[in-house]
Amino acid sequence: MKISFKNDYSEGCHPQILTALTASNLVQQDGYGGDQYSQNAASIILQKLKAPQSKVHFVSGGTQANLVIISAFLRPHESVIAATTGHIFDNETGAIEATGHKVNEAQAVDGKLTPETVQQVLDAHPVKPHQLKQKMVYISNSTEIGTVYCRDEIIALSMFCRANNLYLFMDGARLGHALMSEQNDLTLADIAQYTDAFYIGGTKNGALIGEAIVINNIALQEDFEYHLKQKGAMLSKGRLLGIQFETLFQDDLYFQLAEHANQQAMKIKQVFELTKCDWWANTNTNQIFPILENSKIALLAAAFDFYVWRKIDDNYSAIRLITSWATTEESVDLFIKEVKKVYHLQ
Amino acid sequence: MKISFKNDYSEGCHPQILTALTASNLVQQDGYGGDQYSQNAASIILQKLKAPQSKVHFVSGGTQANLVIISAFLRPHESVIAATTGHIFDNETGAIEATGHKVNEAQAVDGKLTPETVQQVLDAHPVKPHQLKQKMVYISNSTEIGTVYCRDEIIALSMFCRANNLYLFMDGARLGHALMSEQNDLTLADIAQYTDAFYIGGTKNGALIGEAIVINNIALQEDFEYHLKQKGAMLSKGRLLGIQFETLFQDDLYFQLAEHANQQAMKIKQVFELTKCDWWANTNTNQIFPILENSKIALLAAAFDFYVWRKIDDNYSAIRLITSWATTEESVDLFIKEVKKVYHLQ
Amino acid sequence: MKISFKNDYSEGCHPQILTALTASNLVQQDGYGGDQYSQNAASIILQKLKAPQSKVHFVSGGTQANLVIISAFLRPHESVIAATTGHIFDNETGAIEATGHKVNEAQAVDGKLTPETVQQVLDAHPVKPHQLKQKMVYISNSTEIGTVYCRDEIIALSMFCRANNLYLFMDGARLGHALMSEQNDLTLADIAQYTDAFYIGGTKNGALIGEAIVINNIALQEDFEYHLKQKGAMLSKGRLLGIQFETLFQDDLYFQLAEHANQQAMKIKQVFELTKCDWWANTNTNQIFPILENSKIALLAAAFDFYVWRKIDDNYSAIRLITSWATTEESVDLFIKEVKKVYHLQ
Amino acid sequence: MKISFKNDYSEGCHPQILTALTASNLVQQDGYGGDQYSQNAASIILQKLKAPQSKVHFVSGGTQANLVIISAFLRPHESVIAATTGHIFDNETGAIEATGHKVNEAQAVDGKLTPETVQQVLDAHPVKPHQLKQKMVYISNSTEIGTVYCRDEIIALSMFCRANNLYLFMDGARLGHALMSEQNDLTLADIAQYTDAFYIGGTKNGALIGEAIVINNIALQEDFEYHLKQKGAMLSKGRLLGIQFETLFQDDLYFQLAEHANQQAMKIKQVFELTKCDWWANTNTNQIFPILENSKIALLAAAFDFYVWRKIDDNYSAIRLITSWATTEESVDLFIKEVKKVYHLQ
Repeated sequence: MKISFKNDYSEGCHPQILTALTASNLVQQDGYGGDQYSQNAASIILQKLKAPQSKVHFVSGGTQANLVIISAFLRPHESVIAATTGHIFDNETGAIEATGHKVNEAQAVDGKLTPETVQQVLDAHPVKPHQLKQKMVYISNSTEIGTVYCRDEIIALSMFCRANNLYLFMDGARLGHALMSEQNDLTLADIAQYTDAFYIGGTKNGALIGEAIVINNIALQEDFEYHLKQKGAMLSKGRLLGIQFETLFQDDLYFQLAEHANQQAMKIKQVFELTKCDWWANTNTNQIFPILENSKIALLAAAFDFYVWRKIDDNYSAIRLITSWATTEESVDLFIKEVKKVYHLQ
Repeated sequence: MKISFKNDYSEGCHPQILTALTASNLVQQDGYGGDQYSQNAASIILQKLKAPQSKVHFVSGGTQANLVIISAFLRPHESVIAATTGHIFDNETGAIEATGHKVNEAQAVDGKLTPETVQQVLDAHPVKPHQLKQKMVYISNSTEIGTVYCRDEIIALSMFCRANNLYLFMDGARLGHALMSEQNDLTLADIAQYTDAFYIGGTKNGALIGEAIVINNIALQEDFEYHLKQKGAMLSKGRLLGIQFETLFQDDLYFQLAEHANQQAMKIKQVFELTKCDWWANTNTNQIFPILENSKIALLAAAFDFYVWRKIDDNYSAIRLITSWATTEESVDLFIKEVKKVYHLQ
Repeated sequence: MKISFKNDYSEGCHPQILTALTASNLVQQDGYGGDQYSQNAASIILQKLKAPQSKVHFVSGGTQANLVIISAFLRPHESVIAATTGHIFDNETGAIEATGHKVNEAQAVDGKLTPETVQQVLDAHPVKPHQLKQKMVYISNSTEIGTVYCRDEIIALSMFCRANNLYLFMDGARLGHALMSEQNDLTLADIAQYTDAFYIGGTKNGALIGEAIVINNIALQEDFEYHLKQKGAMLSKGRLLGIQFETLFQDDLYFQLAEHANQQAMKIKQVFELTKCDWWANTNTNQIFPILENSKIALLAAAFDFYVWRKIDDNYSAIRLITSWATTEESVDLFIKEVKKVYHLQ
Repeated sequence: MKISFKNDYSEGCHPQILTALTASNLVQQDGYGGDQYSQNAASIILQKLKAPQSKVHFVSGGTQANLVIISAFLRPHESVIAATTGHIFDNETGAIEATGHKVNEAQAVDGKLTPETVQQVLDAHPVKPHQLKQKMVYISNSTEIGTVYCRDEIIALSMFCRANNLYLFMDGARLGHALMSEQNDLTLADIAQYTDAFYIGGTKNGALIGEAIVINNIALQEDFEYHLKQKGAMLSKGRLLGIQFETLFQDDLYFQLAEHANQQAMKIKQVFELTKCDWWANTNTNQIFPILENSKIALLAAAFDFYVWRKIDDNYSAIRLITSWATTEESVDLFIKEVKKVYHLQ
């Protein structure tokens, strides 16, 4: 079987999570998030956020987090702005529209939104009440193409949103990778301060399943449990989520795992830099997108699994290579060795 | 800490599941249900159903299963009929209505629907197009009050539904307990034959999370994955569900666990029968509802956790005692001993 | 062709409306409710309400008014309480559920809700967040069975709603008939004071189409036009609605028409009182429901159209007779003559 | 008061409609579309379509027609493709998304879709089930910018849709103007043959309100009345719509009115052609979009009302001039005279 760099959810979970699940297995606990593990995990997260007034809720996956949050916060005539590349725009089978809300498309620069690109959307909707009222800005960090927001960019977006009566919501399916990127200067506390809500992705960084939703805007916290239940997002055994986030956050395992994933990707990036290849996106997280000759791609694909992401022209394509907490040094070394062989690097 | 008979999701999962999760943990698999464990679990289930043309999909929980199935099958002007006691009617925060569909209330007898009670709902909706078109009948087995459908009852409902152009859908959150009830004469193969869709509940019978949706009606199978994804019900690590159902079904562990739960409940039932108490519902599964004097309830509650379910009059109330795969013989014996003490039984 | 007492929308509109439409026909006006007729009609209505801070919007019909108001006011996890006989509960093809909201059924007394029956619904929903949060009470005046709310009943309901954080919304499809009932002691100003929103029905009282929505609760007024447009309820030629309400309200034609309708029904009621028949509902508006022998019904049906409303037993049924602004004295006299003949009243 | 060329719904209705409403006013009729006028109007329309198997339903307005049709035809995971300029894409306050369906944007050429631009949307959605399934193509004729589809273009789109399992739906809010355009070679019978559904707009061509929905695809006809009622689109006095369409179609008044409107616009077009101005869109219907110097626009705006539609650069803008059945020759002559004066044409 080939070694896979296709995605960051190919394995189960970090072994410490299995240990914690086993250790706690027969302890009786309340259901629906009332268990002590979820309470404790929320408490640890809030300490790291330095935001005691924020509220934490655990759910199973990212699409679920997005649809519950957006439908809970918006009124029927309000829409959310997302980048063309935003996950909610075209990769979640219309999950947001299914709750009644349009996703207004904004142009992204390196996968990111800016006050200028959001302003363009507002400018295109002057005709009240024949056009929707934009009320939320959705961003992802790291973005769907592996780039990250720096602190100044988040502050600028946040100030813009507050000035324009827009909520700012960050999809953090790969938040760990963003925060552990070499380029990053953003902290969890910054995110708590500058967004109305965000979530911390567990599924792609060591958990079996689980995303931790954090609602910072106090006005949006009320009654959120109703929305979780109504959308099928409230697990009766909420302990499953609580135990995982407790394990990931009590000793910063979450950050170590993300750092490991990033480092593996960066090692692969370095070998491609030797080939002087072009890049489809300039990333410092756990995804890289080198543009390669199709013949070279075929050679690499003989022994490794990965996605051919975009056709560039008749001879070249961008591939996506993605690493995770579970990617071994050994696998990366084997791949690097193969690249060197294919490119005749010493 | 008190021993709890409050619900059947107080513990984690059966230890064999943890073993299986651990053993498979680092094997790389495709996401979104494409993993070999899910494929294998589906295959085993279909063999037990003797229904090779049916389709299996795994989701996290019961509310999610209900809302995905019902919204996928109905058109906007169609409604679903459920018993007053049906879980979708008043215990899922309007999850079905949130997808646009009304739940028409039918009177239940012992928690169950019959052709007669469904016919009453149809009779009350003669005015096309000012009233909704009923298109589905939702039943639970075991029911929300612990009773079970016998084979003849299912066949009668099925024949009625087919004659009236209604889908028949069975919520099997506690299907194991129904099938292992002393009274049961229904098989999984019967259910596959006589319903359009149903689900096999894992969460309340040994799994961490997980329900196996089975769609028997071929016309309803197409495109179901889209609905799963849209409603946030498709786990990227679908393996988590596949591994659990593989473990539960490959050696009939699922049925053994349900049988154990039922037996513990029946042992407690027997001691209450000695007290000549009345019963709020006559059950043979893992839930019992004795009606007791409030003073006796207070004595029992000193050492055990359970719900006081309904006030009967100023002096009496029904309590709910629920057992599970994880309920130990020891806990049950302690409780029985306490009942005997409270009731001065030898 | 038989004379019809089947409903109050069998004819076109009061001739003064046709005159007004003709007179204004070629005057150019802004669209979407920005026309001077709509502005003027709203102004006249607000004066009659003595509620200058209320807002008026005109829509085409009652189902539309109900669905726009309810979906605009409620958040996704909130439900509306209505009587079993309430129009939204079972006569609008699930229009409210189609916007995502459950209609919780309350028992009606004479077609009306009381604080006690609403409290029963609240009491049946204690389990947060597994049950919906009730947020609105929907009543109709006159009710679907022709009865009316007196002032004290409205005040009691209003006080109850405010104490329980519920909006009070009155469906006034037949509000004119209620206000002109002999029993009535309620004023338009009372309704503006004691409800959060209501509408004044034009379609069943002299207009071609049209209901005037009035929002009294200032917090609920914002952005309402968006909801109208989104639900297809905003006419480009809003003038059609404005001109009609201007005509109906500038000289109290609306009230005169309702009074006429009520008087005709009361005349018919009197002749049935001579027969000592029973009544299915005790009404003083434009609907009456005598319970008659089926043989007598057959005789009356030979020359007149009306609905047989409910089977009472094998020999008796309730019929519904409904009058309108367009019912002529002559038609009523012919019907009364026939009743006397059938019952051998001299 | 200025003469207005701002829109084609500034006046009431053609006087023959008022005459017909008056003549029929006191005739008693069944409600909800069961009246003889609606039946007769439907029958006349079907004769003109040469499509006896098609079904006709009358509704109040265009947004309503669009949302009822699209939500009735699509299942939850299906989307509709529209041009960026399509009315449903950004001018109906998210009406389609509010029913749960995404509108996928396609690039328009002269306001029109082609098989190629639709194919581009399909090509961008290969990832089942993470992306929506496109199931309908929405076009407008005349388009939102006044252009028209020729017969070959409709046939090509229709063939493409059938080959790709897509419904073809035509928004005919200004269908009369399209069919009476000098360029037109399309017939009503063609539209019935090549689309699955369309509607014939009355509001913008002589009616007070009203659009006639025509469903040609037999598989989509069933149960449509339920959807009308559920969305608040079924008038109790359906006669209001029936009488209008009877009047418009029994002697081809509909087509005469559209021809008049087009002719007035073409007269204005001719005078601008003398100025050698550029055009924002090349139209032959009742809308024209000359690009003029801002200083000239200011001069024209002194005596006439119209929209400045798009800024072209700092000195030039496109204006929209729109004519209707009610635009008088006199108004047009006055405007032409003013243009000549402003441009110093003899």
